[in-house]
Amino acid sequence: MRGTVLYGPGDVRLEELEDPTIVKPTDALIRISATCVCGSDLWSYRGINPSREPTPVGHEYCGIVEAVGDDVHTIRPGQFVIGSFFASDNTCPHCLAGYQTSCAHRESLGGAQAELLRIPLADGTLVATPEIPDDSLIPSLLTASDVLGTGWYAAVAAEVRPGETVAVVGDGAVGLLAVLAAKQLGAERIIAMSRHEARQALAREFGATDIVEDRGDEGVARIQDLTDGVGADAVLECVGTNESMSQALRSTRPGGNMGFVGVPHGVDIPAQELFRSHIALRGGSAPVRRFLPELIDLIWKRDINPGKVFDLTLPLDQVAEGYRAMDERRAIKTLLLP
Amino acid sequence: MRGTVLYGPGDVRLEELEDPTIVKPTDALIRISATCVCGSDLWSYRGINPSREPTPVGHEYCGIVEAVGDDVHTIRPGQFVIGSFFASDNTCPHCLAGYQTSCAHRESLGGAQAELLRIPLADGTLVATPEIPDDSLIPSLLTASDVLGTGWYAAVAAEVRPGETVAVVGDGAVGLLAVLAAKQLGAERIIAMSRHEARQALAREFGATDIVEDRGDEGVARIQDLTDGVGADAVLECVGTNESMSQALRSTRPGGNMGFVGVPHGVDIPAQELFRSHIALRGGSAPVRRFLPELIDLIWKRDINPGKVFDLTLPLDQVAEGYRAMDERRAIKTLLLP
Repeated sequence: MRGTVLYGPGDVRLEELEDPTIVKPTDALIRISATCVCGSDLWSYRGINPSREPTPVGHEYCGIVEAVGDDVHTIRPGQFVIGSFFASDNTCPHCLAGYQTSCAHRESLGGAQAELLRIPLADGTLVATPEIPDDSLIPSLLTASDVLGTGWYAAVAAEVRPGETVAVVGDGAVGLLAVLAAKQLGAERIIAMSRHEARQALAREFGATDIVEDRGDEGVARIQDLTDGVGADAVLECVGTNESMSQALRSTRPGGNMGFVGVPHGVDIPAQELFRSHIALRGGSAPVRRFLPELIDLIWKRDINPGKVFDLTLPLDQVAEGYRAMDERRAIKTLLLP
Repeated sequence: MRGTVLYGPGDVRLEELEDPTIVKPTDALIRISATCVCGSDLWSYRGINPSREPTPVGHEYCGIVEAVGDDVHTIRPGQFVIGSFFASDNTCPHCLAGYQTSCAHRESLGGAQAELLRIPLADGTLVATPEIPDDSLIPSLLTASDVLGTGWYAAVAAEVRPGETVAVVGDGAVGLLAVLAAKQLGAERIIAMSRHEARQALAREFGATDIVEDRGDEGVARIQDLTDGVGADAVLECVGTNESMSQALRSTRPGGNMGFVGVPHGVDIPAQELFRSHIALRGGSAPVRRFLPELIDLIWKRDINPGKVFDLTLPLDQVAEGYRAMDERRAIKTLLLP
């Protein structure tokens, strides 16, 4: 099969690789219908997360089950399935508590920017759609695999409640879908922080009521202005840098809630400031599996259209251009069709 | 009047000071019935928080209202009152959200280890008891001013729910009352971390079901053992050092909740570790005013007896011995009677 391999900074290639196979009886094998490039793939692509050897990449996927191991009971060949970027058994205490990305038996998935993918712990990891979806639903269903689930978790971690004022730091696909999540959870006012016109427009389409272009101290001051000096009830941090974390913390009202889903890179959380602020902070790799049934249902009913974050669709053999376009911020998110 | 002044490390003195007076129309003047020494007073007493000049100290109090300013409407002379260590208007957005220690007009109180005390923003700060309390209730009512409210907030910040397993780091008065709070909030299993026999006994009396004497890595391992490798649902950090914060974080289950009320001193919150853990973290100076009506009611009905944390009662003129006894851990907490 063909699959994407990262060789080093700026160097991804589609190559002929060996077909994956069922290795354990709990595995499933799926034929990828659509995959995509994640903001977090760029950390490696840019050399910020160094990789020592050629690595198959990609962790967002949906597709048709080709085969299952003998111990797979809830997933059948022929079903259309979506899963998280971490495989989880969905039965351990952490999974039962809704934190499947902390599963006692979790396995990180890689190599999804390919034609075929082996999914460990298939029963715990994959969720099937009611039937084979119409092609028009596939982009949205694909987002549920990571980027929608991650934006959703940002809003859930920040305990967004009906009527609240929510600020979203980060206008990548996760930030934009955090706007959509805040809207779905009933936020009345949603302030998106973005200085990029196309992203602002999409943020508004997803539910943003206000756009703030300023960053840093000025950005914080604008949020304070917009909230009569109180701060936002909930702030969703979707970047992962020290600057964005600091901006998010200082935009949250005393006693408010902050969800952070940008993987922290060089972040310092000032303990004294956090103490003084009374802010509750919850973050982490989104337990996407928890949200999959609800998100699939919302997409199936066409209540939400998160697939709009894909503003570039390419055949898989143009994966390198897909990365470049996102790296240069020419594209919000690249959909890849094997 | 006589009042306590901190001169420098290890040097507190009871002195003749000028009587406080009503300065603003929102002030009240109270005659202290009982006051005490706080664990946080020891930071200054030990020179860890350096003080540059002689400072009147003490911030825990209850007593009888002597006089009120013209703009005080809910508090009357002759009432027995309890208040928080921060004055708050109880009407600003932060107060209305339950974070009175972040009040837009908050004022820090000091000089309570004395005979008389001026209370700013009396209407927002003080809560009167139904009538003049029996002497036997005074120690417990005094705890509501800070140490009980702080332990209570630790449990509320960690969202302790019925049936949960809770671990408490710190066996000072706040930690012990955090045990009591967890019990009241319905925790099924409460693990108190203490290596001090008298404190262990009091922890058990307040509701602890298990005692862990180990600290650091061994302490974390013991909590893991006691929870089948899962970790505690909620951990209440009541110390404020880097070691205690780290121990608390590592004792919390993935996706669990941690409340931290020990004022952080040299604490580093590792962002990556927090991200990986999915733990929600909320801390801060307890918004005691939020809890006062409920706590006074529980004490008034004799449902709880938090006054048991006072294992040393001294006349105010022996305040220096009161500090020494706590500094040397001969006393859990010293009650002072003017």
